[in-house]
Amino acid sequence: MDMHKLTRELAAKNDSKIVMLVADGLGGLPQEPGGKTELETAQTPNLDRLAAKGIQGQSIPVKPGIAPGSGPGHLGLFGYDPLQYQIGRGALEATGIGFQMQPGDVAIRCNFCTLDADGNISDRRAGRIPTEESAPIAISLREISIPGIEIFVEPVKEHRFVVVFRGEGLGGNVKDTDPQATGVPPLDPVADDSASEKTAEVAKEFLRQAREILKDQPKANFHTMRGFAARPDMPTYEEVYGLKAAAIAVYPMYKGLASLVGMEIVGEAATLEDQMTVLKENWDKYDFFFIHFKYTDSTGEDGNFADKVKRTEELDACLPAIEALGPEVLIVTGDHSTPAYLKSHSWHSVPTLLVSDCCRPDPHTSFSETTSITGGLSQFEAKYLMLLALSNAGRMGKYGA
Amino acid sequence: MDMHKLTRELAAKNDSKIVMLVADGLGGLPQEPGGKTELETAQTPNLDRLAAKGIQGQSIPVKPGIAPGSGPGHLGLFGYDPLQYQIGRGALEATGIGFQMQPGDVAIRCNFCTLDADGNISDRRAGRIPTEESAPIAISLREISIPGIEIFVEPVKEHRFVVVFRGEGLGGNVKDTDPQATGVPPLDPVADDSASEKTAEVAKEFLRQAREILKDQPKANFHTMRGFAARPDMPTYEEVYGLKAAAIAVYPMYKGLASLVGMEIVGEAATLEDQMTVLKENWDKYDFFFIHFKYTDSTGEDGNFADKVKRTEELDACLPAIEALGPEVLIVTGDHSTPAYLKSHSWHSVPTLLVSDCCRPDPHTSFSETTSITGGLSQFEAKYLMLLALSNAGRMGKYGA
Repeated sequence: MDMHKLTRELAAKNDSKIVMLVADGLGGLPQEPGGKTELETAQTPNLDRLAAKGIQGQSIPVKPGIAPGSGPGHLGLFGYDPLQYQIGRGALEATGIGFQMQPGDVAIRCNFCTLDADGNISDRRAGRIPTEESAPIAISLREISIPGIEIFVEPVKEHRFVVVFRGEGLGGNVKDTDPQATGVPPLDPVADDSASEKTAEVAKEFLRQAREILKDQPKANFHTMRGFAARPDMPTYEEVYGLKAAAIAVYPMYKGLASLVGMEIVGEAATLEDQMTVLKENWDKYDFFFIHFKYTDSTGEDGNFADKVKRTEELDACLPAIEALGPEVLIVTGDHSTPAYLKSHSWHSVPTLLVSDCCRPDPHTSFSETTSITGGLSQFEAKYLMLLALSNAGRMGKYGA
Repeated sequence: MDMHKLTRELAAKNDSKIVMLVADGLGGLPQEPGGKTELETAQTPNLDRLAAKGIQGQSIPVKPGIAPGSGPGHLGLFGYDPLQYQIGRGALEATGIGFQMQPGDVAIRCNFCTLDADGNISDRRAGRIPTEESAPIAISLREISIPGIEIFVEPVKEHRFVVVFRGEGLGGNVKDTDPQATGVPPLDPVADDSASEKTAEVAKEFLRQAREILKDQPKANFHTMRGFAARPDMPTYEEVYGLKAAAIAVYPMYKGLASLVGMEIVGEAATLEDQMTVLKENWDKYDFFFIHFKYTDSTGEDGNFADKVKRTEELDACLPAIEALGPEVLIVTGDHSTPAYLKSHSWHSVPTLLVSDCCRPDPHTSFSETTSITGGLSQFEAKYLMLLALSNAGRMGKYGA
């Protein structure tokens, strides 16, 4: 059964505030046998104090044993079953650069390539042309015009850019034009279903004009299109939870993911301190706040245990600023684990702490991978976290009489 | 996968007895930060002794974060997925007054109303007419006769009564006749699907005769019909588990819920002591006994922490009488939590204890919200409890070879 059917039915309104602080890649591993994890090594007096008032447990991002990317990791925390809602490659790329896709948009990952005199591909990545050269070339494609279609062209990095088509009747299922080989010409865009035929036609016309614009570029005299994807059709936070939600993030990817579920992206922040300022400034305007902290993940990805410990302590230090605002529900969690030991996202379940005045505190007075094993929330799939948040906030009535 | 497909296949017969003692609303919360719950405050020497022999854990009534009503709460304990089996409003109302619906019955919640001289509703609840006045009026409607249909009219309270139609080909999907407004006439019953057209016709004829019978009643000169609902189509305990099951309850609602899954309602009991007598008297006649204790819920709903503690002690005191009969499996659980702190059903998982000679005891020597976090059953969805009961009773064979 779709949990959103239930949350819609049972939604109750009140003035409560819910804060979900997501420390990306929060969970970790000991660096050596018998050692402590990053979170256990860090000095976290605020988390420990909150642990004494709260209930903790371990969130399973998707299913036991599955390491998620940022997309499914966050969708789970937002209460959207990550096995049901999938974000296509193009949509993820657009989202990752902060492009806010609208329903009906189709996003496409594009690669500049080099064609030889016969029109065959001689380099599928245009010699990995540097970003400072490629970005103006991508921007030059903005002059392409197709009647009835709004077109967005956004540079990414090196040979990569994103194209988004906006218009009526555009399906997202079109085959890649990259033949995955050199010495052959790029393929034509071909629709995989009848709903995507118009998209294939639009892409063909885009490519025709692009070939004209790019013909005198020595390296990047054409481009391929891959990963056509419609915006995933996801109901909004407002619609499924009755929550006016704000996202306070530094990195474009997380703003993009939040916008896919209808959160508003508020403020400009470069640091966690900035994010706390944005939170305070917007406190009266929203019911729900998603705060994203990147560096517990990036230091884990770097395999830098000591830096991940430091970043965890930085996270801990921001908590009093959140508490001072008096949220009815405060959640600290991660979208997945990123142990420095593995230098990558992992499948390990994620320590998760929930504090509210009716959370049924468990006996723990610190917060870690080890304590959360025996926390009152036990292990649970991340997709249920929003149900707990809503109930603890008094925002969900009972099911059935 | 439907667990009942499995239980049917794997069912094994023996002479074991299973007792499920349901303390309604058992789980609680501390009344103040750092405090103990009701169950932790109560002196429960028998539960503690059983905890030492048994295995405990926390039952999640529906899904994490969902507070259930009595219907879904009990269906889960009985092993019927509460998201799959839903009890319509009319069926729940009939069940709630102890009416035992049969397959094919359609139950309808009715409200007496007042019509003005033009036939428009002037009061949708007939001035909340007192029960002592309304009950005889409801009973007067028993003279209504419709060929081929057996009709039951049962007074409830104030302006409310229940009508049940019994006959061939009656679907349960008919629109309410209450226009939810005054100054307009009641609506005609309209079928929502073709299978319910006969029901709509029967309802129309019922209303025609009711209008005639009630026309001289000053306040309650007509009635509306709402929440048409067929009996939920649930297989019986006998069919899915091979268990001859008895329900020993004081309140009509729980007798009704038990009858929906084919339990027999045995004995007349006003107290827990009476229930123990009924249990003893019927011990040889059944395989499974559902014993319902209401007062851990009602005291919680009243917000009366001290009374819930007392009622929990009362529950504890009945356990030796059950143990004396030597059940192979004894389960103590609740259909949901009802913390006095919240004065309502809540989403918190429910301490659950199972004792059998092969239950694999965990190290706990007391039974509470805190101990059950680290009990051997961990957290589990209530719908799996019957599988544990059957296996512990030696009544379920292995799955696959």
